[in-house]
Amino acid sequence: MESRGISLGELAVRFGCKLKGDPDARVNHVAKLEAATPDAVSFLANPKYRAYLATTRAGVVVLDEASATDCSVPVLVTKAPYLVYARIASVLHPPPNLPPGVHVSAVVDAAAEVHPTAHIAANVVIGAGCRIAARVVIGPGCVLGMNVIIAQDTRLMANVTLCDGTVLGERCIINPNAVIGSEGFGFAPDQVGGWVKVPQVGSVRIGNDVEIGACTTIDRGAIGDTVIDDGVKLDNQIQIAHNVHIGAHTAMAACVGISGSTVIGRHCMIAGQVGIAGHLNICDNVVITGKSMVSASINKPGVYSGSLHAEEAGKFRRNAARFARLDDLAKEVRQLRGKHQSDPAENTKID
Amino acid sequence: MESRGISLGELAVRFGCKLKGDPDARVNHVAKLEAATPDAVSFLANPKYRAYLATTRAGVVVLDEASATDCSVPVLVTKAPYLVYARIASVLHPPPNLPPGVHVSAVVDAAAEVHPTAHIAANVVIGAGCRIAARVVIGPGCVLGMNVIIAQDTRLMANVTLCDGTVLGERCIINPNAVIGSEGFGFAPDQVGGWVKVPQVGSVRIGNDVEIGACTTIDRGAIGDTVIDDGVKLDNQIQIAHNVHIGAHTAMAACVGISGSTVIGRHCMIAGQVGIAGHLNICDNVVITGKSMVSASINKPGVYSGSLHAEEAGKFRRNAARFARLDDLAKEVRQLRGKHQSDPAENTKID
Amino acid sequence: MESRGISLGELAVRFGCKLKGDPDARVNHVAKLEAATPDAVSFLANPKYRAYLATTRAGVVVLDEASATDCSVPVLVTKAPYLVYARIASVLHPPPNLPPGVHVSAVVDAAAEVHPTAHIAANVVIGAGCRIAARVVIGPGCVLGMNVIIAQDTRLMANVTLCDGTVLGERCIINPNAVIGSEGFGFAPDQVGGWVKVPQVGSVRIGNDVEIGACTTIDRGAIGDTVIDDGVKLDNQIQIAHNVHIGAHTAMAACVGISGSTVIGRHCMIAGQVGIAGHLNICDNVVITGKSMVSASINKPGVYSGSLHAEEAGKFRRNAARFARLDDLAKEVRQLRGKHQSDPAENTKID
Repeated sequence: MESRGISLGELAVRFGCKLKGDPDARVNHVAKLEAATPDAVSFLANPKYRAYLATTRAGVVVLDEASATDCSVPVLVTKAPYLVYARIASVLHPPPNLPPGVHVSAVVDAAAEVHPTAHIAANVVIGAGCRIAARVVIGPGCVLGMNVIIAQDTRLMANVTLCDGTVLGERCIINPNAVIGSEGFGFAPDQVGGWVKVPQVGSVRIGNDVEIGACTTIDRGAIGDTVIDDGVKLDNQIQIAHNVHIGAHTAMAACVGISGSTVIGRHCMIAGQVGIAGHLNICDNVVITGKSMVSASINKPGVYSGSLHAEEAGKFRRNAARFARLDDLAKEVRQLRGKHQSDPAENTKID
Repeated sequence: MESRGISLGELAVRFGCKLKGDPDARVNHVAKLEAATPDAVSFLANPKYRAYLATTRAGVVVLDEASATDCSVPVLVTKAPYLVYARIASVLHPPPNLPPGVHVSAVVDAAAEVHPTAHIAANVVIGAGCRIAARVVIGPGCVLGMNVIIAQDTRLMANVTLCDGTVLGERCIINPNAVIGSEGFGFAPDQVGGWVKVPQVGSVRIGNDVEIGACTTIDRGAIGDTVIDDGVKLDNQIQIAHNVHIGAHTAMAACVGISGSTVIGRHCMIAGQVGIAGHLNICDNVVITGKSMVSASINKPGVYSGSLHAEEAGKFRRNAARFARLDDLAKEVRQLRGKHQSDPAENTKID
Repeated sequence: MESRGISLGELAVRFGCKLKGDPDARVNHVAKLEAATPDAVSFLANPKYRAYLATTRAGVVVLDEASATDCSVPVLVTKAPYLVYARIASVLHPPPNLPPGVHVSAVVDAAAEVHPTAHIAANVVIGAGCRIAARVVIGPGCVLGMNVIIAQDTRLMANVTLCDGTVLGERCIINPNAVIGSEGFGFAPDQVGGWVKVPQVGSVRIGNDVEIGACTTIDRGAIGDTVIDDGVKLDNQIQIAHNVHIGAHTAMAACVGISGSTVIGRHCMIAGQVGIAGHLNICDNVVITGKSMVSASINKPGVYSGSLHAEEAGKFRRNAARFARLDDLAKEVRQLRGKHQSDPAENTKID
């Protein structure tokens, strides 16, 4: 299907769009508006790129009603262009269809169960007690410790490490060099200034349809499990500490760090480089903007910001704007106070 | 011993606790207060969880004198419940006892020495000149370059990379996908806007009882070595640049970055996402709170904070609280100043 | 040459320095001023270390005219001591000369082309359609997906993952456990609070002379490619999102995160832990200081700072200095206002 493609008429029917254009024309891949050829589907979701509608050579553009008139080529009109584009792209660009079987170089323990439809790539290592379900893909160089359980249709890219006892749901995607189930960071201070290791006896349980980014790390529970619920999406370089619980459909951008035992609700969105302290509760439907530091629980849905500590985002924006004029403000206060008092800030070289 | 467990009486004697309960009762694993069964040890160290004492079904709870009366099941009373718990858990949950020997799929250079009691797992690669001591564990997929030296009882989890010349002490634990001894980031600007690589000719030396987290990276010295002293604990996703020196028993939480040539003292605690600039000195017994940026040396023990640049923590907290009201403060100053002057902040759309 | 070394006279000629000392004396390695022996070259580039000039035992020191008189041993005088040192060190410490050929344990697809002078180490996996040019080094445990193209003299350290379609230029160095070409983070919200994956159909194209740090991740384009131009230097633990474009000779320190579709100019310097939001343009010759958050495009060369959001660095420094006295400033405002009004800040416990 990918080579001959799919007709615009079929796309309109399958994805509930209104088609303006020839229903028998065919497309076979996706492309950006400005680079698309007549056999490509493109889309407009961000108004920033609207100018390309006039000149695009795409075979069809997925867009909303308001943009349709600007477009010089066939259109598929929908209220949710990005969503419909995602679904069309998934049809035109399915994941590679890897043959079932275990590569001769893979090392699979005799006490592991691998479904005959699973694809186990070169140099994979699978420990005793693992159970690999139907159509699972384990990419080259991945290491599974003991008693790892992977449900059907989940795919691990290359060099992923799943430590002992990790449980993965269905249809998950784990990107390269991610680590799941590593030892949590738990030490008790002894009486002479050193640290005594606290054995980390829990595991990691991951639901269905979870995606985990490259070099992201998820520690196993210290006692009890670390839990990632269905539909959670984690970008690259994220750190999830022991005993964290992330609610369903929450998404986190890259470089976020979540400290131990924090519970995050459902449908949250955490932007890049955010840090969340330990033992907190973040309720459902919370959005946290980039680089914020969250050092207290959040009990009310909303948008939160702040690199000192997170607060309601509108208030933060106003304070941040004032911060950008803080030196001026301090000088005003000095004028108001009069010159007879010395200004301590003047005694320090600050630039 | 793990299956039959250990008697409460023996625990009391070995760990110097006062037992209230049957000394012949036995426990064989650890569990959280709320999930524990009568064959489990639990503990109370954080008062937040005190309410569970009334209903726990644990076989015994490790706690302090003040909490003992609230508990409905046997107790082991100590002044340091978390420390005693850690030690009991280490007895009940020892690391897996892996058989000695080199897996047939491992590639060990003929010019490497591997002690016969070491465990070398599947798909390990060990270069020329390496020396692996007694009872060392090298997990699946690990790569050791040339001339890597690992002292006894150290364990590497999976997919760890140790570059040429790395030296590891005794009883260290290195978590999956950590990288030790990679090239430091050193470039000299040329005269035409490009960069000339400065060869990184040093190595990394790591002491005894050091733990290193998943995906943590430690660069080798540019000239001279990067040094991590005894008992240092590094969480996941930490970056240690070339020629850094970390003093004994210092602990760092996840996502910390330490720039080149900085020297950190003993017994410091660095919280998550902290950044420390290069060529600084941080003295012994310094605590730095989460997400702080340290851009100047610290010469006095204490607690430091700040995302603009670190300062004494109490002062930072007060300023941060004021920041959270900065927009109000600016408006007050405007009122004091009177309405006849225009407020530049009012001319900008800030929310 | 490394054992017998090179004469000071030859160094002076090759690198355009003025030599004060015996031209026939020889050196064979580099060392720090304080640790150098008479067969070592050392250098002085940071005035902080000038005191060592009086006591160093180095065979020769590379330095500038102004420092030459302080030095008790032979000197090579140049206007660019660090640059000349880098070049001399590269001559004395060339990368290891690895033998050509494919290790017996490597798994190379029959439909991949590997140049006979390339070095393919143990446990490497190379997929169908890959093309590996002359003198390329692929370190142990590296995984190359399908259709990866690597130009001549590029070296991959251990456990690196290059996903399908990645293109690398000449003379690049990729440090251990880096991941290039992983799936970008793209999801469209569905109408019931979940996320629909947006297939990531682009790739990653990397120019010549690029260096990439350990555990750094570069995502492939969502649609179109992620592009890293010639001479870019990326430190460890950096995250580059899909469709980012980084201009030639830009350097980034560790732990930086760049969000999707952002375009960064040439000759920029981005310090550690900086975050740059998505869909921005950063022009050429921009410097961004450590831990800054950039949430708007930058159209003018200069130095930018700020953890709230980046602004011109001098102004930021003044505001940050005022922030460090914000509590005092607020108290002054309160005094000016008089005691008859209550201070809201006094009603909250802030420390």
